[in-house]
Amino acid sequence: MSKLEFFKLKTREEVLALYHRFSPVGAEEVDLAGALGRVLARAVPAPEDAPPFPRASMDGYGVRAVDTFGASVGAPQYLEIKGEVPMGAVPDRPAGPGEALRVPTGAMLPPGADAVVMVEYTAEHPDGTLEVRRPVAPGENVLQPGEDVGRGEVLFPAGSLLRPQDLGLLAALGVTRLNVHRRPRVAILSSGDEIVPLHQQPQGGQVRDSNAPLAAAQVAQWGGMPTLLGIVADDFSALKNALAAALAAADLILISGGSSVGARDLTLEAIKALAGAEVLVHGVALRPGKPTILAAIGQPPLPLLGLPGHPASAAVVMEVLGRPLLARLAGLGASQSWGGEVMALLSRNLAGASGREDYVRVRLRREGESLWADPVLGPSGLLSPLVKSDGLVMIPLGVEGLLRGETVTVRLFY
Amino acid sequence: MSKLEFFKLKTREEVLALYHRFSPVGAEEVDLAGALGRVLARAVPAPEDAPPFPRASMDGYGVRAVDTFGASVGAPQYLEIKGEVPMGAVPDRPAGPGEALRVPTGAMLPPGADAVVMVEYTAEHPDGTLEVRRPVAPGENVLQPGEDVGRGEVLFPAGSLLRPQDLGLLAALGVTRLNVHRRPRVAILSSGDEIVPLHQQPQGGQVRDSNAPLAAAQVAQWGGMPTLLGIVADDFSALKNALAAALAAADLILISGGSSVGARDLTLEAIKALAGAEVLVHGVALRPGKPTILAAIGQPPLPLLGLPGHPASAAVVMEVLGRPLLARLAGLGASQSWGGEVMALLSRNLAGASGREDYVRVRLRREGESLWADPVLGPSGLLSPLVKSDGLVMIPLGVEGLLRGETVTVRLFY
Repeated sequence: MSKLEFFKLKTREEVLALYHRFSPVGAEEVDLAGALGRVLARAVPAPEDAPPFPRASMDGYGVRAVDTFGASVGAPQYLEIKGEVPMGAVPDRPAGPGEALRVPTGAMLPPGADAVVMVEYTAEHPDGTLEVRRPVAPGENVLQPGEDVGRGEVLFPAGSLLRPQDLGLLAALGVTRLNVHRRPRVAILSSGDEIVPLHQQPQGGQVRDSNAPLAAAQVAQWGGMPTLLGIVADDFSALKNALAAALAAADLILISGGSSVGARDLTLEAIKALAGAEVLVHGVALRPGKPTILAAIGQPPLPLLGLPGHPASAAVVMEVLGRPLLARLAGLGASQSWGGEVMALLSRNLAGASGREDYVRVRLRREGESLWADPVLGPSGLLSPLVKSDGLVMIPLGVEGLLRGETVTVRLFY
Repeated sequence: MSKLEFFKLKTREEVLALYHRFSPVGAEEVDLAGALGRVLARAVPAPEDAPPFPRASMDGYGVRAVDTFGASVGAPQYLEIKGEVPMGAVPDRPAGPGEALRVPTGAMLPPGADAVVMVEYTAEHPDGTLEVRRPVAPGENVLQPGEDVGRGEVLFPAGSLLRPQDLGLLAALGVTRLNVHRRPRVAILSSGDEIVPLHQQPQGGQVRDSNAPLAAAQVAQWGGMPTLLGIVADDFSALKNALAAALAAADLILISGGSSVGARDLTLEAIKALAGAEVLVHGVALRPGKPTILAAIGQPPLPLLGLPGHPASAAVVMEVLGRPLLARLAGLGASQSWGGEVMALLSRNLAGASGREDYVRVRLRREGESLWADPVLGPSGLLSPLVKSDGLVMIPLGVEGLLRGETVTVRLFY
C-alpha cells in the first residue's frame, strides 16, 4: 500500500497558494540589446516626452489650419511656400499667416504651423504659390509632443516581461540600461537506479534519462537557467548529498524522483534530512502528477519540487506547478499576459479522474472558423502523446467529465 | 505625388507566394542540449524501440494474466512469490505458471509474465504466497516494447521546430546529435537623416533609432540571429555601400527606410543599384505597411525587406511579412503549429481600409468564459498602442469593416 495514500492530497490551488513563501530572485542591470524576455525588477518611467517635438506624420506642408478652412477643389486656398524643413533639423523659420513650409514625414513642424496638409491635396505653382484643395483641422497629420508617451509616465510596472515592441519604445526614449530580475537558476537532478545518462547505451532494464533534458528545456523556454546535475542512485546518502550540493548554487531544485514507490520514499526521506527542510506538499490532486513533492529548504526558503518519474507526468507537473513557481521566482507580475490559453471545441467525450484535476493532452485542429481540441490519449509513461500535443485541457475536480462539442480552455505548450 | 501610387500594390498573398524563390539556410549539427527552438533539416527516425523492453507501469507483481482470471475479494487467486526484479536490472528468472515476481514501476517484466497486478489488489502472506483479489488482462499495466515509438518510425519530419517534449523523446531514444538548420543571420540597417543612435541625445528634429532594436528583438524571438549594422544617412552611395556590405554576411537584409517619400525613393534606388538586384515588390496592400519593399539580390537570391519608417508600421510588416520570410529561411515546415492565433470577440465596430488589408492592434481581455479583443487605436507613428496590445486583428481586403461582437482571429505577438 503506497504511503501516499495516507497523506491528504493537496489541490493545485492549495499548492499555488504556498508559493508566496518564496521570494523573487535578485536584480541586475542589463543592456537594452539583451533585455528581450527579461522581467523588470523596477518600474520604468518615461525620461522624456515621445515624440519630443511636434512631428509631421505625413509628407506635406506645415500650415496654420485656419488658412485652409473652406478650401475645395473648386475653390482652393492659396498659400506662400517659404521653404522646407529638412529631416532631423530644426526649422530655420516659422510659418506665418498665409505661409506654408514643405515638411517630410517625421520632420519637426515649424513654429506657427499647427497642421500638415497632405501633398496629395495640393499643387505647387511655378511662382512659389501652394494651391490647397482640402482644409485641415488643427493638429491634423501631426504627432504632438508626448502623444506617444508623456515624461514621467510609468512605461512598464515592475514585473513586466519585455517584448520586442517594449524594447522599441524604450529605445525611442533612450532607456538603454534596465533593472531586471536575474534569470532563476534551476538545478535539475534525476534519480533512479534504472536511469543511465543520455550518451550511454542502456542495458537490459535500464532507460535513458529523458526527464532532465525535458525539464531543462521547459525551464529555458520559460526564462530560467537550467543546470543538469546528473543522475543520483536510489541511495539515501547519495540523494541527500546531491541535494545539499544543488542548493548551494540554485534558486530552485528540481528532482525527478524514481518512478517506483520505494525510490520515491527514499527521495522524500533525503529531502526531509536536509537542514531546515519543510515538506509542504506530498501528493497533489492531479492526474497525472499525484506523487509530486514541494519542500522549502533553509532560510530564506528555497523551493524544491519533486517531480514524478513518469516522463509525461513530470512534463505536466512542470506545466501546471513548475511554470507558476518559476514565474514567481522570476518576479513576473500576476496579470502579465492573457495566459497562453485558447478556447477550443472538444472533439470527444472525456471522463474525469475522481478526486483529482485531470489534465488531458490535446492537439489543436482548425476546421473553417472553429478550433477543435482532439484528445491525445496514452499512459503517462509514454512521451509520444505529449509530442503529438499542442496543450492541455483540464477537467476540474468534482466534474464527471467533459462532453464532445463543449468549449474548453486549452493551456498551450510554449 | 508619391511614386508609390504608380505601382500596383501587391496583396499579402502575392508577396508570400514570392518567398519560394528564397532557399532555406544550410544545416549544422547540434547537441540535444542546444536544440530547443531549432528546426530539423532532416527527418529523424527512431533508432530503437521505446520502451526497449516490456516495462511495468505500476508497482505490483509480474504474473501470467491467465493465473488471475476469476480472482475476487471473496475468492482470491493464490500465486507463489518467486523474488523481485530490481530497477534497471534484467530479471534473474522467468515467471512460470502460478508464479509472481515483485516489479516496481519502470522495471522490466520477467519473461513469462504478461501483466502486472497492482500492489493495491494483493496481499503478501508470510509463507511467500501472493493473494490476488482482482484479475488482470494480458498486457495490463505493462508498456510494450515500441509502444511509445517503434524503431524506424519517423519521429519528426524535416522542418519540425523542436519543443521541450520533443527533446525528451529524442533523449529517451539516445538521439544526442541533431541536424538542424542554421539560425538565419539577419542584418539590420536603419536609414534616415533624422535618426540618431540609441546612446546619443537627439537634437531638435532628431529621433532615436527604435526600429532596429525592435526588429532585432523580433528576429531573435522568431529564432533568427540579428546583427545591428547601424544607421546610414539618406545618401545614395552610403546606402548602396552599406547594403552591399550587409549582403556579405547575412541570409536576410532588413532596412528600415526613412519615413519620408524622398528617403524611401533613395533607398529604392540604392537597392536597385546592387549587383543582381530585382525589386519584386514595391508597395503592399496593407495598412499600416504600404511602403514595403521586397527585393532579391544576387544568385542564389538573398532576400531584402525594406520596412516602412514608422515604428508601428515596421513592427506590423515584420509580423505579417517578415515572420513568414524568416520561417521560410529557417526551413520551418508549413503546418508546423496551429499558428499562434486565438479566436476572440471584437469589442467595438472597426472600419476597414479601402483597398488594403487592415491590421488593427488589439488587447485581449478575459470576461468569464469569453475572450474579448479590444482595439488599441492610434497613428502608426506611435509605439505605445503596440506596447498595449497582445496581437493583431486583420480586416480582409474588400471587407467594409468588422462588427462589435463578431468572432475574430487574433494573431498573437510572441
